[in-house]
Amino acid sequence: MRPSTPYLRVDVARLDDNITRVADAARAAGVQVWPHAKTHKTPEIARRQLEAGAGGLTVATIGEAEVFADAGVTDLFLALPIWPDPAQAGRLRVLADRTALRVAVDSVEGAHHLAACLDGARVSVLVEVDSGQHRTGVPATDVATVAVAAAGAGLAIEGAFTFPGHSYSPDTTTSAAVDEASALTEAVSQLRSAGIEPTVLSGGSTPSLQASLAAPGVTTELRPGVYVFGDAQQWELGRTTPDRVALTCRATVISHTGGRVVLDSGSKALGADRAPYASGFGRILDDPDARIVQLSEHHAVVETDRSYPLGSVVDVVPNHVCNAVNLADILYADHGPGLEAWPVAARGR
Amino acid sequence: MRPSTPYLRVDVARLDDNITRVADAARAAGVQVWPHAKTHKTPEIARRQLEAGAGGLTVATIGEAEVFADAGVTDLFLALPIWPDPAQAGRLRVLADRTALRVAVDSVEGAHHLAACLDGARVSVLVEVDSGQHRTGVPATDVATVAVAAAGAGLAIEGAFTFPGHSYSPDTTTSAAVDEASALTEAVSQLRSAGIEPTVLSGGSTPSLQASLAAPGVTTELRPGVYVFGDAQQWELGRTTPDRVALTCRATVISHTGGRVVLDSGSKALGADRAPYASGFGRILDDPDARIVQLSEHHAVVETDRSYPLGSVVDVVPNHVCNAVNLADILYADHGPGLEAWPVAARGR
Repeated sequence: MRPSTPYLRVDVARLDDNITRVADAARAAGVQVWPHAKTHKTPEIARRQLEAGAGGLTVATIGEAEVFADAGVTDLFLALPIWPDPAQAGRLRVLADRTALRVAVDSVEGAHHLAACLDGARVSVLVEVDSGQHRTGVPATDVATVAVAAAGAGLAIEGAFTFPGHSYSPDTTTSAAVDEASALTEAVSQLRSAGIEPTVLSGGSTPSLQASLAAPGVTTELRPGVYVFGDAQQWELGRTTPDRVALTCRATVISHTGGRVVLDSGSKALGADRAPYASGFGRILDDPDARIVQLSEHHAVVETDRSYPLGSVVDVVPNHVCNAVNLADILYADHGPGLEAWPVAARGR
Repeated sequence: MRPSTPYLRVDVARLDDNITRVADAARAAGVQVWPHAKTHKTPEIARRQLEAGAGGLTVATIGEAEVFADAGVTDLFLALPIWPDPAQAGRLRVLADRTALRVAVDSVEGAHHLAACLDGARVSVLVEVDSGQHRTGVPATDVATVAVAAAGAGLAIEGAFTFPGHSYSPDTTTSAAVDEASALTEAVSQLRSAGIEPTVLSGGSTPSLQASLAAPGVTTELRPGVYVFGDAQQWELGRTTPDRVALTCRATVISHTGGRVVLDSGSKALGADRAPYASGFGRILDDPDARIVQLSEHHAVVETDRSYPLGSVVDVVPNHVCNAVNLADILYADHGPGLEAWPVAARGR
């Protein structure tokens, strides 16, 4: 099998190495890994994570939960404080019957609405705590209020979780792990004051992972996603190295007029993510000094000192691998001799 | 049918109005419209554009050409200087048999390679001219060199085209149309000097459309894409108004802790495009003062003075509609009473 460019290629040896390294480090630190499957959306990769010892899978949507349940995953954490509509409520009840399902809550009203939607179906809940990203999640001092309301509505409280997403900023990559530990410590104290003994205290992101594993504190589990592949963000944050990047977009040089090198990998293959800490729109795996300076839907314009004849094939590292994967129906798994097609079964779900 | 959020909703009355308005203005200016179908990737919308008088459809990939050929479109322009691999060469030959196909070239080597791939199959070519975007395309003064080489390789030269993509910058939105006209004028002169009489001189982008129609010069056709829907970029560039925006992402308020309004429409529904002229990560259709200040894959954090209770449903205008559509398998067409599912048949192709 030789797909036409642009396509996403997975280096399976590097993928397995990334999975194993984190699984081993977590085991040594005494915490579980619940990998975030939104990164890969691919049952074949979930299987490898679970075989390496993951406690369960984290997902972001009901559709992802359904796809991984269909693939035989029994332990799922839907880490978003959803507000189900009637159709979603029915899907949640079906999921609750077939899996051990946890769901996020971050408000009293949300807990009441969730309980009404579940209508007695058994899920457990984790209260989301804001540890510094200021997205969803209550301040740690308000965890008990939400937990008590959820318990009163008949939901089973398993504990609390946080996503230290400010770890994606270079200034706070390491301190985000400290914030994570202190938010979860405060959450424990609040829950115990309310007579609730938490069994799960969940944190984690790929940039903060190393620091969290070095000093887990009360944390019982971590939920990194991007670590399986790495991407240009992690490379530029110093959280992976090019020789560990396991997913690239294979692209062809289609134009070089005016001294420019133009690839056929645009934002419809790489995604359009661009953050202050990404120096361009992606990186060239084997040409670290090159920069992608312009990105359209079907063109990437590269500045480089090297020469790339028309028709050359290069490996591009996307800025944010989660959004690149969500554009593809297939990941082409490179085992060495040939390519195997892995369906991105939860793409768009 | 009532899909769960986030989903893309098309206001059919506005869509038809956008299509008709441009078709009428082009007819009055004496130029054809070859709409760029990469924006919608949807046969149902292509059908409406062709019924309104479009001369053919522009596409960006062989896969898009195949989908629209399957839908019965006979006139297609693949406006990217591709470098086909053997599989793509075979697909091009099949397309050449079933459609009137035009392909872009922007180099002598590219023309030779294309001719070899086609192996006698009949396509016509347009030479791409760089009118100021500095992406693909030769300087207008080099058009004849490429055209003569292409003709020598047995390709039928139909003319030249340019994409004045610098029209997406607010400083050059109008002047890009002037650059387009002068690049095409120079291309005509170059081609005639080489003994080639062009029949097609193709330009166009949505931001420059109005200016191009006001003074088409030698231009025989225009290839706008985004005009069918509009998006937050066009809104902020002053090229559409909220009451003409025909596609929105319908989203639910899932969290409002800390005074924030958080929607379930993240970058996996809206796309992650963000340009200097977009003031955020998308806009709220009915709340023009609101700003999306933070976007993750499944969260949009909104700053607004208005109050949105949990569970509220809002319409978000994506920054760049082409990339939002490429994330969805279905567009939900709102005709008034109910929703109809339009497959985004060329998504990911």
